[in-house]
This record gives sequence, C-alpha cells and structure tokens, in this order.
Amino acid sequence: MTRLAQLQTPALVLDRGVLATNLADMAEAVGRTGVHLRPHLKTAKSVDVARLAVAGQFGGIAVSTLAEAEHFAAAGFRDILYAVGIVPAKLDRVAALVRSGINLMVVTDDPDTASAIVARAGAVPRVLIELDCGEGRAGIAPDSDQLLAVASKLGAACAGVMTHSGHSYACADFAAMAALAEVERQAAVLAADRLRAIGTDVSVVSVGSTPTSRHAAHLEGVTETRPGVYMFQDLQQIQLAGLGIERIAVTVLAAVTGRRPADRAVLIDAGGIALSKDRSTATMPVDYRFGLMLDHLGQPRYGDAIVQRANQEHGLVSVPAHTPFEELTVGTLVRVATNHVCMTAAAYDRYHVVDGDDVVVATWPRVNGW
Amino acid sequence: MTRLAQLQTPALVLDRGVLATNLADMAEAVGRTGVHLRPHLKTAKSVDVARLAVAGQFGGIAVSTLAEAEHFAAAGFRDILYAVGIVPAKLDRVAALVRSGINLMVVTDDPDTASAIVARAGAVPRVLIELDCGEGRAGIAPDSDQLLAVASKLGAACAGVMTHSGHSYACADFAAMAALAEVERQAAVLAADRLRAIGTDVSVVSVGSTPTSRHAAHLEGVTETRPGVYMFQDLQQIQLAGLGIERIAVTVLAAVTGRRPADRAVLIDAGGIALSKDRSTATMPVDYRFGLMLDHLGQPRYGDAIVQRANQEHGLVSVPAHTPFEELTVGTLVRVATNHVCMTAAAYDRYHVVDGDDVVVATWPRVNGW
Repeated sequence: MTRLAQLQTPALVLDRGVLATNLADMAEAVGRTGVHLRPHLKTAKSVDVARLAVAGQFGGIAVSTLAEAEHFAAAGFRDILYAVGIVPAKLDRVAALVRSGINLMVVTDDPDTASAIVARAGAVPRVLIELDCGEGRAGIAPDSDQLLAVASKLGAACAGVMTHSGHSYACADFAAMAALAEVERQAAVLAADRLRAIGTDVSVVSVGSTPTSRHAAHLEGVTETRPGVYMFQDLQQIQLAGLGIERIAVTVLAAVTGRRPADRAVLIDAGGIALSKDRSTATMPVDYRFGLMLDHLGQPRYGDAIVQRANQEHGLVSVPAHTPFEELTVGTLVRVATNHVCMTAAAYDRYHVVDGDDVVVATWPRVNGW
Repeated sequence: MTRLAQLQTPALVLDRGVLATNLADMAEAVGRTGVHLRPHLKTAKSVDVARLAVAGQFGGIAVSTLAEAEHFAAAGFRDILYAVGIVPAKLDRVAALVRSGINLMVVTDDPDTASAIVARAGAVPRVLIELDCGEGRAGIAPDSDQLLAVASKLGAACAGVMTHSGHSYACADFAAMAALAEVERQAAVLAADRLRAIGTDVSVVSVGSTPTSRHAAHLEGVTETRPGVYMFQDLQQIQLAGLGIERIAVTVLAAVTGRRPADRAVLIDAGGIALSKDRSTATMPVDYRFGLMLDHLGQPRYGDAIVQRANQEHGLVSVPAHTPFEELTVGTLVRVATNHVCMTAAAYDRYHVVDGDDVVVATWPRVNGW
C-alpha cells in the first residue's frame, strides 16, 4: 500500500470521491436539459477519468489536441470532437483516425480550410462550423454570410455547428451565466436553422462551458454540451459556482523546503512549473495569487495560506496568524489547490489517486503534448 | 531533410547560432571575473545544450530537480549542484547518485535537515548552506547565528555557501545589477569567512543570476557563478540586458488557426500551455502580455504583434497596422517569443534545432518533471 508520504514531490493528487461528486452534479444538471453531455477531456487528459465521465452518457467526448484524440481512440473511444480549429498540416493525422473508423469531428470557421478538409477523398472527417457567441475568440458570427460560405465548401461533410462561451468565466452570478447560456444557445440554433434552410443536414448543435452547462435554463434546439473543468474544479471555478474547497478534486502534493518564521512564511517545492503561473483569480472576490495551501489530506488547516510567489521550483506561502505555523517543518507534506487546474495538471504525466485519505489507490496516466 | 513546415504545431524551436552567441557572451563576461562558470540547466534541461554550455569551462553544472541530476549524471556529468533546498524524503535519490560516484552537492538552510543529510552514513553528499542576500526567498542571513548552527550539524559535509539574487530581475539598469552583484558577493564572502573562522573547509562560494553574473564588477572571494536563462534569453531578459529580439534562441512554432479581420487579430494554436501563463514583462518597459509573434524564421515581420490572450490551446494575437496581416491565412507558420523561457520550455519534451533558417538540423530531448 502506497501512501502520499512515499511519493516524490511535487506530484499531482486526484481524489476520486470528489471527482464522482462533481461528475454526478454535472450529469444531473445537463440531464435536466435533455441534451447529450459530451465531456471535454482537455482538463483531465486521462482515459480513466474519461470512462467515469461518459458513464451513463451517450459516449462522445471532446478533446483539445490531436494527441488526446489519438490516445482516447486507442483506448476505445469512438466519437471524438477535436474542438480546436484545424489547420491543413494536421489533416494527415485526422485522416488516419478517420480511416481507423473513429467518428472524428473537427472544427473550422475558414472557407479555405473547409476546402482543404474535403479535398481528402476517402478520409474526410465530419466538420462542425465554429461560431462566435460573443467570446471574441474563434468562430464566425451566426448571422454572417461566411457561415454559408464555409458550409458551401464543406457540403456533405458539414455535421453542424459548435460554439463556446468562455466569457462565462467572467460572469458575476448564476443569473448572468443563465443569460449567457441563452445567448450561446440562440447563436447555435440560429446558425443551425440557417444551415438547414440551405439544405445542410445539421445533426450536431454543440455548446458549452462549465458555467453555462451548469446554469442553462433550457437548451432547446441544442444537441449537446461540452463542459470540461467541472470534473476537477479549481479556485476559479468554485468561486464562480459558489462551492467550497472540498469540491476541488485535484491538488498538488508538495513538501516544505524552508521556513521564514519572521515573515510567517514557508517555502514549498511547488513553484511556477508545478502550480502554473495562471492568475485566473486575480480579478475574483478572493485572489489566491498562485494557489491555496492545504494540509496533506487536502483540508484547509492553515486558513488563507496563499502562495504569494511562484519561481520556477519555489513557492513562497504566507501562513496566517492563529494557524499552526510551527508544525510546518522542512519536509512537511501539504497540498495546494490552484487557480486553473487545466494549466496545473499539464505539468504532470500522471494522477496519484486517493479516496478521502492519504492512501494511493491507483495511478492514472495523462496524455500531454500535441 | 526536415523543415519547420513538416513539424506538428505547437513545437519548440532552438536556434543553435543564437545559443552559441549567448554562451560566448556569458563565458566572456564570467571569464573576466576569474571565477568558475557553473551553467544552471534549469532552463535548458538538455544534455546537448549542457555540453555546449560547459565547453571551455570547469565542467560543473547546476540543476533544479533531481530528475535533471539523474539525467545529466547518466550522460556523464560528474559535478552537479542540485540548487533547490533538499527535503529528507529526497535523500534516497541523493544517496544513489553519491554512491554512483557523482560529486553531488545539495543545499539547505535548516539545522534539522542538515542532521538528516549527515545521518546517511556512506552516502552523504557535499552540502552548501543557502544564504538570503536580499531576495527574501530561501536562505538564511549571512550574519545570523543559524549559519553556524547549520554548519555545526553538517560538520565535514559542509562544502561552502550559495546564494541567488533573483531580485536582480527587478533592476532598472546595469548599475543596479552591478550593485546587487556586489551585495550578493559580500553576503557569500561574509558567510564563507564566518564558516572558515570556525574551522569549516569552505571550497565553494557560489553566487549568481543571469543579470548579476553578466554585470558584476568583480567577484573576489567567490569561486563560481550559476546563471541559467542567459543561454536562451526571453522577452524579460532582453529588456533587462538591453538586447534585441535576435538574441532570443528559443521560440514556439505555431500555426494560424483563425482570423478576425475586423480586429486585425489572428488565432494561433499556441495558448497558455504552449506559451505558459508567465507574465514577467507585466511591469517592464514593454509588456508583451503572453508573447510576441514573429514570422516562421523568427524575424519581427509583424511589428508588435502581441499575444493578447492565452486560453488553454488558443492564442489571440493583435497584428499592428502597416504589417502584412493579409498573408496570415489559416495554416501560416509563425514563431512566438515568450516572457519567461524556463516556463515555456517546460511544456515540451524536445527542441527542434535550427541554424538561422527553417531547416531542422537536430532534435534535442529535454528532461521534464521531478
């Protein structure tokens, strides 16, 4: 039996009980809308997590890299949406997946790229046209002429539309998330209707961020939603969702490497690489700087013990008064919750899985890179 | 012959001519001081780079993880300083390296840890006591009682002292860097003298950041300096050093995935994971947000084309007026210089090496993780 104390730090810890709670919560919320839940594996990048996330669902997944698509395909997943705009140089790998029998969908918003996709006779993936529902990132306006131009290039390869309201992370409350979910839904449905009017067979109308998937009042006309970070939660997401620290499933196991008693600060061996430099909580009600230090069981034993600085391999944590600073001797194990778990997890090749205590019950690999 | 256009994006590109220039420049600067140059491999994490960096030097290297120490030891490096505070749980790996004949040095500033280190009879590494020369991170004050307390626990295992002026990255000009180099030197020499006064055999007096290594007026009493990021440079370091973009050796190869003509913006397939979320230029004369987009040869063809947003797999780049926005079609290759190359490189398992053009002349692996 391996315990956390036997691991080399820093290491990534996943609590499977918390994961199960988070999965059930989203499944229930999306279930109420009647649309498919297509878990986005960009956060977890793990076959083990993916199998839990699709249990009871229709089986489709979304991914953010072709490395993920290839990894999940090899593990038996057959319905995969690669949800980042495709470029022509990646079509060889797409073609290989299509030829192997994977129901692979790619996305584009560009007429020339659409032409390049359909030129691959015999290995053409299904394609979703990406829409901009207000985020101002990828995608075209649902009422634009370009929508029809892309669809015309795609012809029978067009399977529908997709959009993403990443700006939901800036919503102040649930009402704003519900309102944005409706904006997202209307954008997707408008585009789908316009495509159907020109004879396109629109079978997929895909939306979704974690906040809008959770708080949509209804999703009429939508076929699926693609949340991802809900599985693990993080210091940004719990503030958006009004949840407690106990809903964060993934934390970084670290060790105290030094003490600064005069400052009530400790150094830990989790710095910028181990935690990521993501500052997503900078503009939120609580700014956690680079993370929140918990005890080795993931409990908030040190109050708002915030990682104030993150150098490459050093984290500097301020330890509030009236918490047991004296027990934080060199070598003491702690866990750190971070701002944005998608970024943090990317530094690790595996999860050490626990279930509420310090016993490592499994090791689950991740697929990083591209 | 492989060209950059044949790589899958995002990918990490290293220009070996620029690397050679940067190595020669630091070798010359440190050579003037007469101390050893111990290249810190925390940035490069590459045996191929390390061999170039130690050429003409005394052969010692510094590392930031035990994974690096093991990797470089396996490649034949014999004098290795693991320059991050050790914790007792890592002493098994230290002992294995010591037993294999590596001249491994570790650092601590903690009396209890010192005791744990020397308790490993037969496999005790040499130890440097870490000093705080004003950075406020790890290390003890050179005039403190704790210095002697740690030395007394270490006994014959104590090989000397080390300190790091990471706060040199906040210096406004070369005079300030030279002044800080002198503070760093004096801290190290004071501690070394105090240790010698109690009979310790101080053979190593180690200092150094890239700015202070480059701008020290003299290093009397110091034996070695440990710069690291000088090999590659980045958008932070060139501003500190008054250098041009052409001195940045490592960039991210990316492809345009989408266009927003109304905003003169493009999307690229290098986002927060590929570039890192490091914001080290936020308080500098030029704030590059998440990076600067160059052409595929690493030339500044698009003016201040700054990566304004970095989501997980999307970078959003604003393209200044009077630069050739129209040529940035989907699939166009670009290179991105980033704020902090130590953080950026950590997302990749290899360098694709070029020499001034787009021909890939070598692939050099990196050692990530811990």
